[in-house]
Amino acid sequence: MKVVKLWGARFEALPSQEIIDFLSGRDVKGTPPCDERLIPYDLWGNRAHALMLCRQNILSRQETKRILKGLREIEKLHDEGRFRLDPAKEDVHSNIESKLIDRTGMESGGKIHTGRSRNDQIALDIRLYLREEVLDLTERVFALIAALVEKAELHRSVLMPGYTHHQQATVTTFGHLLLSFAEALWRDGERFFHWMAIFNRNPLGAAAGYGTLFHLDRAFTSRLLGFEGPTENVTDPITQRWEAEVELAYAATVTMNHLSSIAQTFILLSTREFDMIRLDDRHCTGSSIMPQKRNPDCLEVVKAKASLAQGLLSGLLSTGRALFMGYNRETQWTKYGIMDLVDETKPTLSVMREIVQLLQVNEAQMFDKIQQAFVGATSLMEWMVDTCGLPLRQAKTVVEKAVKGSEVEKEGKVTYRSLERVLREMKIKIPITPGEVDQRQAPQSILDQPFVTGMPSKRGVQGNLLSLRARIKHGRARLIRMRKGIQKARALTMKAERQRMH
Amino acid sequence: MKVVKLWGARFEALPSQEIIDFLSGRDVKGTPPCDERLIPYDLWGNRAHALMLCRQNILSRQETKRILKGLREIEKLHDEGRFRLDPAKEDVHSNIESKLIDRTGMESGGKIHTGRSRNDQIALDIRLYLREEVLDLTERVFALIAALVEKAELHRSVLMPGYTHHQQATVTTFGHLLLSFAEALWRDGERFFHWMAIFNRNPLGAAAGYGTLFHLDRAFTSRLLGFEGPTENVTDPITQRWEAEVELAYAATVTMNHLSSIAQTFILLSTREFDMIRLDDRHCTGSSIMPQKRNPDCLEVVKAKASLAQGLLSGLLSTGRALFMGYNRETQWTKYGIMDLVDETKPTLSVMREIVQLLQVNEAQMFDKIQQAFVGATSLMEWMVDTCGLPLRQAKTVVEKAVKGSEVEKEGKVTYRSLERVLREMKIKIPITPGEVDQRQAPQSILDQPFVTGMPSKRGVQGNLLSLRARIKHGRARLIRMRKGIQKARALTMKAERQRMH
Amino acid sequence: MKVVKLWGARFEALPSQEIIDFLSGRDVKGTPPCDERLIPYDLWGNRAHALMLCRQNILSRQETKRILKGLREIEKLHDEGRFRLDPAKEDVHSNIESKLIDRTGMESGGKIHTGRSRNDQIALDIRLYLREEVLDLTERVFALIAALVEKAELHRSVLMPGYTHHQQATVTTFGHLLLSFAEALWRDGERFFHWMAIFNRNPLGAAAGYGTLFHLDRAFTSRLLGFEGPTENVTDPITQRWEAEVELAYAATVTMNHLSSIAQTFILLSTREFDMIRLDDRHCTGSSIMPQKRNPDCLEVVKAKASLAQGLLSGLLSTGRALFMGYNRETQWTKYGIMDLVDETKPTLSVMREIVQLLQVNEAQMFDKIQQAFVGATSLMEWMVDTCGLPLRQAKTVVEKAVKGSEVEKEGKVTYRSLERVLREMKIKIPITPGEVDQRQAPQSILDQPFVTGMPSKRGVQGNLLSLRARIKHGRARLIRMRKGIQKARALTMKAERQRMH
Amino acid sequence: MKVVKLWGARFEALPSQEIIDFLSGRDVKGTPPCDERLIPYDLWGNRAHALMLCRQNILSRQETKRILKGLREIEKLHDEGRFRLDPAKEDVHSNIESKLIDRTGMESGGKIHTGRSRNDQIALDIRLYLREEVLDLTERVFALIAALVEKAELHRSVLMPGYTHHQQATVTTFGHLLLSFAEALWRDGERFFHWMAIFNRNPLGAAAGYGTLFHLDRAFTSRLLGFEGPTENVTDPITQRWEAEVELAYAATVTMNHLSSIAQTFILLSTREFDMIRLDDRHCTGSSIMPQKRNPDCLEVVKAKASLAQGLLSGLLSTGRALFMGYNRETQWTKYGIMDLVDETKPTLSVMREIVQLLQVNEAQMFDKIQQAFVGATSLMEWMVDTCGLPLRQAKTVVEKAVKGSEVEKEGKVTYRSLERVLREMKIKIPITPGEVDQRQAPQSILDQPFVTGMPSKRGVQGNLLSLRARIKHGRARLIRMRKGIQKARALTMKAERQRMH
Repeated sequence: MKVVKLWGARFEALPSQEIIDFLSGRDVKGTPPCDERLIPYDLWGNRAHALMLCRQNILSRQETKRILKGLREIEKLHDEGRFRLDPAKEDVHSNIESKLIDRTGMESGGKIHTGRSRNDQIALDIRLYLREEVLDLTERVFALIAALVEKAELHRSVLMPGYTHHQQATVTTFGHLLLSFAEALWRDGERFFHWMAIFNRNPLGAAAGYGTLFHLDRAFTSRLLGFEGPTENVTDPITQRWEAEVELAYAATVTMNHLSSIAQTFILLSTREFDMIRLDDRHCTGSSIMPQKRNPDCLEVVKAKASLAQGLLSGLLSTGRALFMGYNRETQWTKYGIMDLVDETKPTLSVMREIVQLLQVNEAQMFDKIQQAFVGATSLMEWMVDTCGLPLRQAKTVVEKAVKGSEVEKEGKVTYRSLERVLREMKIKIPITPGEVDQRQAPQSILDQPFVTGMPSKRGVQGNLLSLRARIKHGRARLIRMRKGIQKARALTMKAERQRMH
Repeated sequence: MKVVKLWGARFEALPSQEIIDFLSGRDVKGTPPCDERLIPYDLWGNRAHALMLCRQNILSRQETKRILKGLREIEKLHDEGRFRLDPAKEDVHSNIESKLIDRTGMESGGKIHTGRSRNDQIALDIRLYLREEVLDLTERVFALIAALVEKAELHRSVLMPGYTHHQQATVTTFGHLLLSFAEALWRDGERFFHWMAIFNRNPLGAAAGYGTLFHLDRAFTSRLLGFEGPTENVTDPITQRWEAEVELAYAATVTMNHLSSIAQTFILLSTREFDMIRLDDRHCTGSSIMPQKRNPDCLEVVKAKASLAQGLLSGLLSTGRALFMGYNRETQWTKYGIMDLVDETKPTLSVMREIVQLLQVNEAQMFDKIQQAFVGATSLMEWMVDTCGLPLRQAKTVVEKAVKGSEVEKEGKVTYRSLERVLREMKIKIPITPGEVDQRQAPQSILDQPFVTGMPSKRGVQGNLLSLRARIKHGRARLIRMRKGIQKARALTMKAERQRMH
Repeated sequence: MKVVKLWGARFEALPSQEIIDFLSGRDVKGTPPCDERLIPYDLWGNRAHALMLCRQNILSRQETKRILKGLREIEKLHDEGRFRLDPAKEDVHSNIESKLIDRTGMESGGKIHTGRSRNDQIALDIRLYLREEVLDLTERVFALIAALVEKAELHRSVLMPGYTHHQQATVTTFGHLLLSFAEALWRDGERFFHWMAIFNRNPLGAAAGYGTLFHLDRAFTSRLLGFEGPTENVTDPITQRWEAEVELAYAATVTMNHLSSIAQTFILLSTREFDMIRLDDRHCTGSSIMPQKRNPDCLEVVKAKASLAQGLLSGLLSTGRALFMGYNRETQWTKYGIMDLVDETKPTLSVMREIVQLLQVNEAQMFDKIQQAFVGATSLMEWMVDTCGLPLRQAKTVVEKAVKGSEVEKEGKVTYRSLERVLREMKIKIPITPGEVDQRQAPQSILDQPFVTGMPSKRGVQGNLLSLRARIKHGRARLIRMRKGIQKARALTMKAERQRMH
Repeated sequence: MKVVKLWGARFEALPSQEIIDFLSGRDVKGTPPCDERLIPYDLWGNRAHALMLCRQNILSRQETKRILKGLREIEKLHDEGRFRLDPAKEDVHSNIESKLIDRTGMESGGKIHTGRSRNDQIALDIRLYLREEVLDLTERVFALIAALVEKAELHRSVLMPGYTHHQQATVTTFGHLLLSFAEALWRDGERFFHWMAIFNRNPLGAAAGYGTLFHLDRAFTSRLLGFEGPTENVTDPITQRWEAEVELAYAATVTMNHLSSIAQTFILLSTREFDMIRLDDRHCTGSSIMPQKRNPDCLEVVKAKASLAQGLLSGLLSTGRALFMGYNRETQWTKYGIMDLVDETKPTLSVMREIVQLLQVNEAQMFDKIQQAFVGATSLMEWMVDTCGLPLRQAKTVVEKAVKGSEVEKEGKVTYRSLERVLREMKIKIPITPGEVDQRQAPQSILDQPFVTGMPSKRGVQGNLLSLRARIKHGRARLIRMRKGIQKARALTMKAERQRMH
């Protein structure tokens, strides 16, 4: 597909298709039916259920064989893109069951729904779907952290102003800033893992929400579906069906909040006024009318998505409020919210990773800024406290006054002259020299400080880098174990299927 | 399409296709690209802009003619379903402009964007779209009010318990209850009208947000597009682009809140425990497993949608917060939220109207309930105050104690015996007879009360009915005037187009 | 009270007490009981109710006289700060009624609750309270608009970059920017007026939510309380009690959103990097540790409050969702949310007004910025379209390429050399001279453009100024009329009271 | 304090003071300044900081001694209620530091702020405060689970309808229902523990957000303050200060959602229409006007609080969105939201525990209901599948039709006659007898089912009970370990203090 744009004659690189998709959002793309993506999970659930019914002698071997064959055929149709959901059949469950009955006849297919209900089917499908997305999101979070860590290492000695209240405050390094975001994202990974810790449990067997008289083996289906075990109560996962979705929505919303903060920081740092970083051309767009524009659209979209994430979470929580015991149809609607949210979040993580990887740092400009705005005043004050023994409160008053004097002199740092004057006026006797006053405000001094955990010094950043790398490694190993567990369960199901089909 | 269901053998009527769509939501249906529905508005805006440029001698007659011809061709393609948005062209504006340039050549088509930007184009398209939806929603609100009024008239003398705190409190009528909902919806109509009052203003000419050097005639495009006039400042509609969407989102959310309250009331009244109303079969569904179920799914879905509405509003408001001056790409994402919300709200109003029209009232059961739960106790007390001159506080204590005594006797109303005992104990001398004690608790007494505005008496309900009917009539006339104004503007555009094309 | 701070030695002016209160928020101040502020409204409601009961012969003249006397005494106690709400008496209504019974005896005081309930009492009190706050907020909105208009007039010719996507885009004026905010605020005023249009109706007489058998005169109490009339249905204002609060919450939240956008704009413009405006010292704070800091705390707090406003609105909407018919105690809790929100919003409007009035504009810096960032490129392109007849799309490509060339030359504007080269390469023949290329990019040119509604030109701003001034005048007159209507009703009540007490 | 009420003559027990406070909310109570409750945490932080500065030779022994003495005096004042926050001093940090300087002179007290800033001080105080509340909330959650478990055991064989869509669906037990809520609450406990896992880390040393040149020992202060260690990056806890609050807000909101679902279930079950449970008198209130009312106010308030919780969470998330790097004053305002939310949540858990403990179950009514509404139809169908080998889909159609036939006969269960007729019509040959048809619908049959995890059978409930008891025991032990860890840290601080003071 050729990309045609009404701007771009001055761009070196144009956005990739991924970025174009990211930016055009739902403008030019529709969304597929939500149940479509549940088909594979519903089929897996059907298989596990049939195998269990057979094991418990509720289905005969013959019936089971036919059902498994029918399910395999439907899966094949689906893989070939020939299984379309029929809107007249309401949902994915009825579509699959109807098709199964069509294929295998009422005698066999008509028995697949034995001992279950759509209420536990959908609870199951959603959990399988959410679990997959949780692992995908975790992987993307780790990839972004890794990109931040790598970039941070590269720029660990690049000095820049540390801002508070949007005002230049003191000195920090660009590497340290990136690591501060990496730390926030690490907690996001922890939240996704926590989802697994509390929701990887099997709701199948709940039937309509109060169980069934059939003698089911819920531990067996749990093994086949890769769950830690069955839920300990069958009503709970039905009344609180919204909760597994809300949990993911929350984790994704906090993640999006972190990304929005990275976005806002990068947007400001890349304005012509700050001019400290330059986004890669492929993450910018031009204007339909202004020839000189280079807009940080990707980052703005991240901010928008964070707002909508919060709204979706709010809607999901509200739906789950004050529900009467048992199934309530309200919970059907939460599915759309969580799918939208997941779809908005996933590419955001990948795009942000790419943005981090490709952004360029304007070291000269960063250094220039810290020469101007008295950002060394705090260091100077700390020196007066540390070396000269002045109480901090007094030293601060001294330097505040000296700043005021130096401002008049149009200097961006405390001058010897004004400091000397203040000390005289306040009758404080400490020996200062012009050289020392300058040196104590020199931003480089922060780089070679001795190690204190978490600091922007070279050693501080080094410590943070090591710690994050260890955690990513550990986290990724954990992720792989989880994925393997799921693959193993899947293989177990297929193996049991093969055995039953012979 | 044949409706196939896994339930329904005991239903008299099955859901209509509209209800099936309403209930299956996005399970089995996708959503179209959002910009697709902006095509007609974008074309209208293009025409108005071209006609104005010509009138201002910015385009030549020849260029204008070619452009108008090109736009007409695109419209024709669109009408025939042959104009597809190309995702590579980002949005509806670029798609139409590219197509126009393709058709008319750079010499003419390349000039359509003169003096405008996509920033004001989208602000315009969105307002035209929102305006249309606002009028549609208003119409549906009036239709629902009318259904409530009609049903209320039918059931104006049907006595039922008036609940507070979910407990039977006193006597009211079903007709009066329905009117209370109609009143709430009337305010919703007012909110939609208020949208028109503050947002039917033309943002075109804002260009990127700070105007243009071309000598535009914004009053002329305003006339062609049916606006009250141009916005008085061009930056405002760009920075605050979210606001017209939020305004509609708010009005729709309050409407959905009202609908959710009707839904919750109907859900409870139609439980087997309350058993006061019966929803029509076509608004219920069966279970995939339990043969006896009749579920009020439509009403549950209404509640879900109200929650999501609130979440979407919340997301939109959050997006509009703390925006820096001028255009921010964040506002692109709000389009999806408002379109989703409108799409969820519109059918809800229609479905609720149908539910109201078809629901059946179980008068006997309603009457039975008010015989049981001391709902006449307040009337009895009021009679003791009114006729016997007891202070209300004292009368209340008397009746509270009499209720306690009567409860022991397992009666659902205050018995003569217990009342007499209490009066004796409290040494209050008022003459009561068994007949009077019963009569003063008789629920029918509320029906024939003299007129007091707003009361559930026959006269009170009559007054409310008349007032609502007058307001609906007036509101509908207002709506028609607005629609005519828009049609007139449209006709004006087409007429000007024809003139320019000759 | 002496203000003691751990910073400030370099500040010319320190924050006023109002600003200190604004900034310290609830850190060092508690909030009073919510019902405390309802006392005057509850007393007014009691008076109106008693006068009506007397007029309807439900109370005797003697009883009424005693009750009115008792209420007057309670009012006096309250005025003297000697009427404290007793927590054991649950709420303001029970407190006042108990006190009244204490003072006047059961024989009279025990009759005040005749024909009403706490359900309609609180609905009344809240509406009276909200109405007062609505008018107060409207007044503050107008005051802020007036300040923006005045400042805008002063700076109508101050050129500055117009930003889109946080990037310098084109030229505008600071005056025009301020007016864009004024326009947004004007809609906020309209929203407050709309509250009056739909909620200034009397709920008294609803009793528990289903009326009463007493023959009340609701029109009479409406006159005494300054309402347009009674609500047309008595159940509606009880079930939907949350709605009047939500309506104000919504209007306040949009207002706060607008203020947050002003805040964010000012925060960025006042960074050392943008350096275009300087906030007055009294709207900044220092740091507890960094001697050189000047932080725009007031503006940051505005942003925080806008977020919380949105959350409070969300909570209120959620509370009002899916309520069963009649009174639900949930609505008690919404009172706290709306009072918090009003308390947060009111001072924000005043503080923002003061910030606007005192901020200083760095004209030189603003002008300097528009010299650098190709902000004249669009004008140049428009000139090529307008004068030279180039299609806009072609002209844009030309200028895009020229920008790219000029960037290499490290110029902040399109150079003659690069433009000439591009024209040559693209074989476009239009006559340009170095002087003209410069002149067409000169930002001043926007100032003297002919009048087009809403533009940042001198004439455009002038038109906007006139329009806003006319609207403020009209709005303030409307506000005064409303206030007079309320005062008149209050006077009517007092007069009726005097008559009854003789 | 004597409780005076305008209702209650027929109540056996009146609400306790705790319940009155719970219900009157902020009507008659104000809220204290938020920083007041941070005083103990700020003092602890001051001590730890001073001890560390001394250990690192930044403060002399003499200075440290004086500072510790001063802090002890302030603590004593606070304990005696004589330390009031002075609003002119902005916040708790400045208040304590000023007082310290007052007491110890500038020479010593003026040095306490060395190497820190209010930015890390408040981050520290908030985490210490949140940690305490997290543990308190966890304890209350466990207490409520324990109450549910106990009550569930008592009512494990009490049959009742299992509802779906608010309609009677099948049979369950009251005990099983209570356990379903206990399971949900157990996840809430897990969320609170997860807070500890990711946020029990020390932000002290971050200073303004970018560290300091002083050679701090952050591991030492972490030990003294009971943290797992220092944050690995100092900017992260400042930029993302909102996150620890949002995390608790989220956990509390989900908890409140669960409580709102219990509340809604109890509200409906205790209506006169359902009449299945009876709330204790002390959890109900009367009406100010209707003598017979018994309102479930406590439960309604729970629902309201859940809504507001969701709103507060939404506001907090919005505040944390799109923050620029480093400290932003916005985060001050989130403190109020989280404190309000904690204050609303804590008593709700306790009140709900009491409600659960005291509610009475109307077994007869529960049993009566399951006799009526075909709730045995599913069991009958399952028997036809299980024993007679009918495919489930066919059996369901059979029973659906039989239900329809039986409805005509006004029976609440499937009659032999109608079932026999359907089988005949559908030409299905299975042997049924009238006795069997009845027996298969008998609700008791669910009780004695063989064990399947999570089912409402006696064995299922027993399994759930055992599992929950084991988890509570384990959870409480974990909680005690955490509390001991904190106490130990506190003791370590006091010991170090004593050593330094000699």
